[in-house]
Parts: sequence; structure tokens; C-alpha cells
Amino acid sequence: MKKRGSKPARFKVTFLPFETTLEVAAGTDLLQAARAGHLPLKATCGGLGTCGGCVVRIVRGECRRKSSAALSSKLSSQGYALACSTQIIGHLTVELPQFEELFLEKVVDFRVTDELKDGLSGVRENDPPLRKIGLSLPPPSLEDNSSDWRRLERELRNKVSFETLDGKHSALRKLARSVRQDQGKIWVVIHKKGGAAVVLDVGAESASRSIFGLACDIGTSTVALHLVDLESGKILGTASSYNQQLKCGEDVISRIDYAQKPGRLLELNQLVVATINHLVGKVTRTAKIRPADIYYAVFAGNTTMTHLFLNLDPRFIREEPYVPSFNNVPEFRGADLGLGIHPEAVAYCAPAAGSYVGGDISAGVLATPLLRDTEKISLFIDAGTNGEIVVGNKDWLMTCACSAGPAFEGGGIRCGMPASRGAIDRITIGENGRVEYSVIQAKRPKGLCGSALVDLLAELFVQGLIDRRGKFKQSSPGGPIVMAEHGLAFRVEEGRNTHWGNDLLVTENDIANLIRTKGAVFSACSTLLKKLDLGFDRIESIYIAGGFGKSLRVESAIRIGLLPDLDRAKFHYLGNTSLFGAFLILLSDRNKRMAEAVGQKMTYVELNAEPKYMNEYTASLFLPHTDASLFPSVGRKGPTG
Amino acid sequence: MKKRGSKPARFKVTFLPFETTLEVAAGTDLLQAARAGHLPLKATCGGLGTCGGCVVRIVRGECRRKSSAALSSKLSSQGYALACSTQIIGHLTVELPQFEELFLEKVVDFRVTDELKDGLSGVRENDPPLRKIGLSLPPPSLEDNSSDWRRLERELRNKVSFETLDGKHSALRKLARSVRQDQGKIWVVIHKKGGAAVVLDVGAESASRSIFGLACDIGTSTVALHLVDLESGKILGTASSYNQQLKCGEDVISRIDYAQKPGRLLELNQLVVATINHLVGKVTRTAKIRPADIYYAVFAGNTTMTHLFLNLDPRFIREEPYVPSFNNVPEFRGADLGLGIHPEAVAYCAPAAGSYVGGDISAGVLATPLLRDTEKISLFIDAGTNGEIVVGNKDWLMTCACSAGPAFEGGGIRCGMPASRGAIDRITIGENGRVEYSVIQAKRPKGLCGSALVDLLAELFVQGLIDRRGKFKQSSPGGPIVMAEHGLAFRVEEGRNTHWGNDLLVTENDIANLIRTKGAVFSACSTLLKKLDLGFDRIESIYIAGGFGKSLRVESAIRIGLLPDLDRAKFHYLGNTSLFGAFLILLSDRNKRMAEAVGQKMTYVELNAEPKYMNEYTASLFLPHTDASLFPSVGRKGPTG
Repeated sequence: MKKRGSKPARFKVTFLPFETTLEVAAGTDLLQAARAGHLPLKATCGGLGTCGGCVVRIVRGECRRKSSAALSSKLSSQGYALACSTQIIGHLTVELPQFEELFLEKVVDFRVTDELKDGLSGVRENDPPLRKIGLSLPPPSLEDNSSDWRRLERELRNKVSFETLDGKHSALRKLARSVRQDQGKIWVVIHKKGGAAVVLDVGAESASRSIFGLACDIGTSTVALHLVDLESGKILGTASSYNQQLKCGEDVISRIDYAQKPGRLLELNQLVVATINHLVGKVTRTAKIRPADIYYAVFAGNTTMTHLFLNLDPRFIREEPYVPSFNNVPEFRGADLGLGIHPEAVAYCAPAAGSYVGGDISAGVLATPLLRDTEKISLFIDAGTNGEIVVGNKDWLMTCACSAGPAFEGGGIRCGMPASRGAIDRITIGENGRVEYSVIQAKRPKGLCGSALVDLLAELFVQGLIDRRGKFKQSSPGGPIVMAEHGLAFRVEEGRNTHWGNDLLVTENDIANLIRTKGAVFSACSTLLKKLDLGFDRIESIYIAGGFGKSLRVESAIRIGLLPDLDRAKFHYLGNTSLFGAFLILLSDRNKRMAEAVGQKMTYVELNAEPKYMNEYTASLFLPHTDASLFPSVGRKGPTG
Repeated sequence: MKKRGSKPARFKVTFLPFETTLEVAAGTDLLQAARAGHLPLKATCGGLGTCGGCVVRIVRGECRRKSSAALSSKLSSQGYALACSTQIIGHLTVELPQFEELFLEKVVDFRVTDELKDGLSGVRENDPPLRKIGLSLPPPSLEDNSSDWRRLERELRNKVSFETLDGKHSALRKLARSVRQDQGKIWVVIHKKGGAAVVLDVGAESASRSIFGLACDIGTSTVALHLVDLESGKILGTASSYNQQLKCGEDVISRIDYAQKPGRLLELNQLVVATINHLVGKVTRTAKIRPADIYYAVFAGNTTMTHLFLNLDPRFIREEPYVPSFNNVPEFRGADLGLGIHPEAVAYCAPAAGSYVGGDISAGVLATPLLRDTEKISLFIDAGTNGEIVVGNKDWLMTCACSAGPAFEGGGIRCGMPASRGAIDRITIGENGRVEYSVIQAKRPKGLCGSALVDLLAELFVQGLIDRRGKFKQSSPGGPIVMAEHGLAFRVEEGRNTHWGNDLLVTENDIANLIRTKGAVFSACSTLLKKLDLGFDRIESIYIAGGFGKSLRVESAIRIGLLPDLDRAKFHYLGNTSLFGAFLILLSDRNKRMAEAVGQKMTYVELNAEPKYMNEYTASLFLPHTDASLFPSVGRKGPTG
């Protein structure tokens, strides 16, 4: 019984997985609400209900849905709805399906373990600084009524060497009871650090459990982690999702800017910590272990991500002379960082080399063979949203960073998505314009991941559908080229064959984004090499990392001018080196020291201070390059447009 | 407008300084409420309003007071009331004046600093492991854009030597801003520990403040602390109060028993932490400093008190074979222990030698000359509620403990009180029965502190008013002997001359308590020496500690048989050695190591396992002793009764 003239009722809408809750007036549509909450929901048609980009899943609550041709009745019956066509008439919880956890089995499939496993820079020994040790304390007597702690120390000395023994308050609190539960048989978790040993936890033998570690890559766009059994060194599970900070900006610069208003640094910090804790929850539930049994966590991220993860203002990274708060960071307590693991867990962040070359790279280098050779020069390219390049060998390392953008991880591209279930990961276009593709673990595609986008760009170019500047050669629709809202587009697949029921289209704007991204990476490489007075021909091996997906084809990457035109045998695609490097650091302090040495050894080149960089970049905004002679093998095969 | 038959209203009553709040029915009297809350309010008349023992001060709220002859109208007008004669008719906050902060200037007046200052075992150097250091970081530039942390580390190495540098998360969070506030001029607080240095805090030069430490004695009955300027080593303030745990039992055994029900350990922990935080608040307000500027705290207490302070179950201390959780305890964070000081402050507890000889004794030994001599044997008596005896020299130490009871700290005695303002601290009785006394910082006495109780017992005995068993010789009232509720009593002062307006009476029951206490201490000494086959004549020096008050007269203590009958020049009364020892440990890690060595070196004798102890104790329950030949000088002077 609403009175006339009274204000409209207001309802709470929660968007998962961001856990953002807003209060909006009754009748607001979900797309308006998502925009008010700065949520990254795409709607290329501008909310007309035609593109199908703003699909959401209704988890709980009542809403009024208009039917739309852009959403199949099957999906509609499964609870999916278009945000633009859904009115809020009660409290509501919805999920943005594009931001569900990714199925990263494929992304983190380690090529390195197959191709190069014995040739990596990092050592593959299992000797973590955190250990669980079983002890059997002799019973106290009137003759020897040493304290529980003293008896623990004595027995521990028989098993581990240390100069000083410390312990956490929470461990000491459990000691007396644990010692008496199983006739003196206990386990302790110790952290060895130099000559000191610190008891993090203690328990009775009958309550013994395995102890676990986390290796985590904190990317600007995606966060991925491994759950590791610290005793065997085995990876028990892997989880990954978008970084929830995405709603605050796509790249590190926009995140730093976002952080400058009051409360925003904490918001960014809480978003990334929530992302990590969400993944910890997922991976521990699957492995059926308690999060509190995780005692060690190693994080690798770019410098801005690490600052935000540590709740440190990244502002001075962005201001000349670009100084971070830290490169090498001390170890902190899990509880200090808000992590949902053991409160006294040791949390370590891989060391950075500079403001724009972070721990993801010093860890990443360990996951390459770069440091094994004193003679041969290698190039390491991590083509994430923040792109980093390292060139060097065992004796010297030089590095730079560029803002590549998220295109290769599926961001900023209309039909882009990460390399997870439902992603097209390989594409070929026949001479007739006929498209063939493969989909990750699904039949109907949802979108295209990085490797497919690289393929597609190469094929469009090689088949003569686009010119060197990335423009469609034909000026009107016909064949696979169709008219979309804002101009011509290449149709990869028709809506009736796709998961969401909408056409998979690639526009000129998407192509321009891809070209900018590949251009930023290639020009960073060439600028760095020119600074060293090295030609690409001096490079013996090229290691590529990034979120492209497992199926990146080097041939395609060379055809678009992302990678230099060298002997294909020199290229090795390594996947997520940051995550694998974090895992190596977790396994052994020797790797940790190596990462610290890498961080200190790398000479950082600030591209913004390099006069040649802008020219190099501009010259790279062609397919494959302004200077076609740099890509002789591409010239031989493809048309020059 | 209360309806008939409805339940009576209920009101909240809060008792200070315990901060205990109860809800009671309207009309309940305050004494009933205090008893329901287990608050230590004395009412020797049983709530008849005649003894005046249950005086409280009304801080806030409404109540209905009956006038009583036992409370002067002046006190009544100042807000005082007798709990037994006060009805609760609204929410009420009252203070138990006997449990206000003590004025401990006198108790902690260091005789040691005068008489023995250069002869103490502990070193008097000012070299604490916590230091504040001013640094001037060079400005970052494009040529050297090392991180803030790296530049801090480089500058710090110019001033302090360390192998590894660590830092607390909260410090790192403040770094970037601090560095930029005053052109790179900052201060850091570091904790040096072996080869490691840990940055606990950081700030801009313009926000520079002094850093402070706490030395704290956690006694069973009273808690006392010093606020210390860590840079100068000077004591800036001192505060002391009853241990709020008192309401849960008077001695360590009753506290351990109390802790065995669910929730009770936490209650005891919170009571002692609240006591300490209350004192920290007081001492910092007086000194006009921020509690968060306290970065180091050293605690000395008996083993049970230290367990309860650390929230550790003390149960196994009480059960054979009497094993504590720890003797040497690691350092903890202030925040771990709930202390209202800097969250990352280093909290250290002086090490124990055994279940019944705690950190108060290993610290206390530092505040005596015991360890300075390799030849002479000394005796150290700490006559607190838990009495401890140490005998030995630089080369060996033997120790035991006895349950002395709180009588010498003013507990368990009708007119007893700590040595604070208003306490009678010296008494003489003339042959005519006339009493002369001195009062600490007041005109009208409130009660008698330990030194006066020792005096009184000696005078009553020497003047022939009591016999060797402590019974009044006259069987009916007359002269200073009056009739009290439960029998004869010696009247120290009439109510019209006292602060609270009630007679200061000492009953036969009080005298029996005092005799049990002195007997426990003396028999512990004699048992320990007999075990070593040493006579008292082999002891060169006797150091006495405890809460008697500054004015303890050795002569009186010998007359009652508390101390052995030796050359008076051998005796040194040192006051609160536990507090002074904690202060010495705070000043220098050399003292900390010395205390740890003391803890390890001491051989602990369990008196309960000594067959002779009970006989020794029973023989000591006479004035001065069953064997009067042990006290020849007393025999010469006093009557044998």
C-alpha cells in the first residue's frame, strides 16, 4: 500500500564476485545499477538489449525481465538475464558470469616443466624455510621439571640446527595442552631464518595435519594461485580469477590514480585481498584442507599491485623520479595483511627491480633459463597488462616496462576473454573466409582468448581482409564482414552457435587495440636492444610469458609483429612465469635469494626517459611493422596491403 | 508507575577500579552486589553498619543511604558511603577506595640506588636494544631511484651495524609519506636482536618524539611500573595499584584453581592486563606522553602471574611434577598481549627458574649484589604474597618458594593496607601502652602497612601484651585492649582520629596471620640452609625485598622471628627488587642475558618435597621461635612469655 507522492522504495543489489552492494531506487535497471557501482559490465549496444554483452545471472531475489532476441530462452530459463533489460523490484543478488573464477588448468599448464624443466634458472629442490617437525618430549619429573618450552627446545635441537629459538604467542598458548595430550608427542611448525628458528604453531601428534603453502601471482587483470603441500612440494590445486580491482581501472596507472582519493587505497587493498581470500577458500575447499594450515605464502606481482596488496600508497611510483616504497620487502604476518590463512603465516613478496618492473619479473626470471648461461643472450617478454622485457644472461640483466594494456588477457576487446573454459584459443581463416577454431573444454564458444586474438589478427592480415593499418579492405558488409553498431566487424561465429547466443564480432576498434598492444611490446623490445646496441639477431632465445593461453602460436605472433622475425626454434612460450617463479621461491630459500639477486642486478631503463621510444612505438603500429624488412618471412607469405 | 506483581527493576552497578559491572534488582544493597561480583570488600561486622570497613565512594548515579555512626558526616558529604547501608535505586558507579591506585613513591624508593648502587649485580649502563635513530635520506632522482626502503637501509648502515634488516608492516606503510614530509629527514625505531635489526616504526623528523619503555613488576597483590625514557634511561614516572585479579583469590594457588573453569583464564588475563593498562594510562597522562610511544616493555612476575599475563593455563604449575609452560619466554608483540602501548612494541618477560621461582626473582637478583662475590654467601628474601628465598654467590644459587600470604603487603589483615598515602608505617608502644606512630603523607591514618605491622607485632611482644603464641595476655578489655566483634583487639587508634572514622584494631586473628606469614618465610630460609648444611652464621649479607614499605625496621623483623638474629649490619632492605630488576633489563641486554643465566643457574628446591619443612614451619609459629636460643638478642631484651 504505497502512498501517492511518497518516495520510491529502495532496494539492495549485490554484484558477485565483486561483492559490491548498492542501494538503488525501485525500477532502476541492472545496467544502470552496475554503472553506478563502477562494475565492468560491457554493453556495446548502449543498453538497447541487442548486443547481449551485459548478460548476468540472477542468484537471489525478484526482478522484472524483458525478453530479448540477444538472449536464448534456454539461457533465460537457467537464470541468465540481460542487465539492460532487467528492472529491480526487490533486494537482488546477481553474478557477472564473465568474472566468475576462471578455469586456469590450461593457463597455468607449465610448458616449462616439459620443455625446459631441468634448464630453469631456479632450483627445483624442495627445501622450504617452513617445516613441520614431529617431536617426542620426555615426560617431566620431579628430578627434571624443565618447562615445556625448554624440553621442546632440547628435542628440536636434535633435529634442526639453530642459534636462537623464538616462538609466537599463539603457539606458546597451545603448548602445555599439546604436550600432555599424546604423552609428549607433538608437532611444531618452525620458520628458519638465518640462525633463528621461530615456532609458528604447535599441536598434539593426534591432531597432526599436513602444512601448506601458497604461490600467488597478483596480476593487474587476473590473480592466480597454487596450493602447495610444503612437505612434498607438490601442487595440490590451482585457482584463478579476475582481480576484483578491475572495476577501479584496467591498468596500473588508472589504479594509482584511483587510489588518490580518501578511502580508495583501502578499497583497492581490500579488493585484491578479497580476490586472494576467495581463491584460497576455493582451492582449500577443493583440496579439503583448512586455510589455517597454510603457513607460508609467496606473492609475485608488479610493483603497483604489490603496493596495493600491502596497503601502501603507490602514488610515488607514478611521480617522477618514480620511487617505490620498497623493492625488497620484509616478511610480514598473514594476519597483518588480512589473509585468510594462519595468522602467523609468513607472507613474502618477490622483490622488485624498480617502479615498473616488479616481483612478477624477478620471480619470472627464475622460471626461465635466463640465468643459466654466461655467453648467450636471451630475451624475456612478459606480455601482461603491464608488459615487461628483460634482456641479458647470467652476468647482466637489463629491463624495461611498457603499458601494453589488457588485450592479450581478453580485456578491452568486445569478444575477448581469458583463456578459460569456453574460450576460442586457436583460429584459422580459409581463403574463402571460412573460420575454423578450437574451444577450451566446451563446444559453444563464449569469446576469444589472447592466443586466438593473435591468430585472428594474423589470419585477417595474411588473408588480405585487413590492411597494414588494421582497417578492413572491403568498405561494405559481405561474406564474414558484417555491419555492427559502430561499423564493420569480422564475424567469428554466429549467435546461434555461441554460448551466450550473441555473434562473436571483432571490430576495427578491437583490431586497433590489439595493434597498440603488440606495438607497445615490440617497440619496448627494440628500444631496449638499441640502447644496448644489440640487434635481434644477437638473441639466442626468447622466452614469452603472459595470459595468452596455452595455445599461443609463435608464427601468428611474428606475423602481426608482436615477436621479432627470428628462427622459430628460438621461441619458448612459458605461460605464467610469475606464478611459477613464486612457486619456486616457496620451495626453497635458494630461489628467494636468487630472486633478490635478480632484483638487485637488473638495470632498469625508464622508457619514458628514452627519446627513441615514441618513434619506435609509432613505427610498430603497422602490420607487421612500418619497416617490413624487419619481418622478411612475413613479407614472403602475406600480402603487403 | 510500577504495576503490582511486575518484576522489580534491575540496574547496572559498576565497581571501580575493577571495572566489574553487574545487574542487580532494585533495592539490593551495595555490599550484597559487591559480594555477588566477588569483589574484595571487607565488612567485618557482617553488614551491620558498625565496622565501617565497607566504605565506598559514589562516583555516579542515585542511591539511598542510611546514616551510620561508622561513617563521619564529613566523609558522607564527600560522597563516601557504607556499602552495607546503601540501597541501589538506579544505575550506579562506585569506587572501592581501598583499591585506588597506590601512591608508591615510597615503596619504590630505591634504597639500592643509595646504599648499594655501584655494587649491584646488574650493570647500570644505558644501552637498550630499542633505539630511535635520525636519518637523512638523499632525495631520489632518475639516476638513483632506489626505493625508499633501500635508501633507508643504506643510511641506517652508516649508523648501526646489522646483518639483516626487517621491518613491521605498519612501519612500511608510513614510510613513503614520512620520507617526503621533511626532505628525507626521518626517524626510525629499531629493535636490534643478534645480527638482525627490525624497524618497528618510522616518522618524519618534524613528528619526532622521544621513545619510552616500561619496567613492570606483576605481583600477586600489587602491580607496579616505571615509565622510562629509553634515550636517557631516566625513570619519568611510577605508578602502582592492586592487581585486579585480587578478587579471584589472594595467592597464586587460589588463582590457578580459579582459572580452571571455562572462561576464567581469560578473565584473569584480562584483569591483569587491565591493571597494567590502567597504570600505563595513568603514568603516561602524568608524563604527558602518548602510550603508543612506548616501544619496549619488560615484565617481571612470579611464574603463575607471568602465565596469567600471557594468557597461558598455569594448571600444570600446580600439579606434580610442577612444570610451567616456559621459563625463558620469547619476546612477543604488545598487541599480542593486549597492551595499550605501541602494537609492535617488544614485550619481554624475565625468565623463571621454576614453577614457584619466577622472573621476579631472576630479575630481583640483578637488583642485589648477590652475583658480585665469589666467596661470600648471601641470602635474598623476597617476602611477597609468594615468598622466595635465594642463597648463594656468583658461582652458585639455590632457591625455594613458600606461600607467605599477603599480610606484609596489607592483605588479610583487618586494618592492613599497602605502603601508600595514609598508611601508618612505623609504630612504637610505650610501657604505658601508649602508641606512637608515623603516617605516610597524611595526618589521619587509614590503616597499617607491612612495616608497621611488623613493628606492632614486635612491640606487642616486647611490651608483654601478647605471649609467644600471639595471644593477648589479659583476658578482658582494659587499656589499649578493647572488645571487638569477635573477641579482644589492640586499638592502634580511635575512630575519631582516623581517616575513615573507624577504630584501627588488630585482633588475635590478625596476629595469627602475621605469625603464619613470618613463620613461612623464616622456615623456608632455615630449611634451605639446612639442605646446604649451612648455618645462618655463614651468611655474610641478607637482602630483603617485599612490599613492607620503605620503613621496615630490621630490629622489629628480628624480634618477631621473621629475620634471623644476626649482626644488624648484614641486613639491607632493598624494596621492590623485581621492579628494579625489570628496569635494569630494560636498560641493557647485558642484564637480560644475566637474568637468563640466573634463571638457568638456580637450583630449585621444592619445599613440599622436603620432609623437614613442616617441622621447621611449625617451630616458627612462635615469637620469635620455638627455639629461643636462635634469637639470643631478642631473648635478652624481651620477656619470654
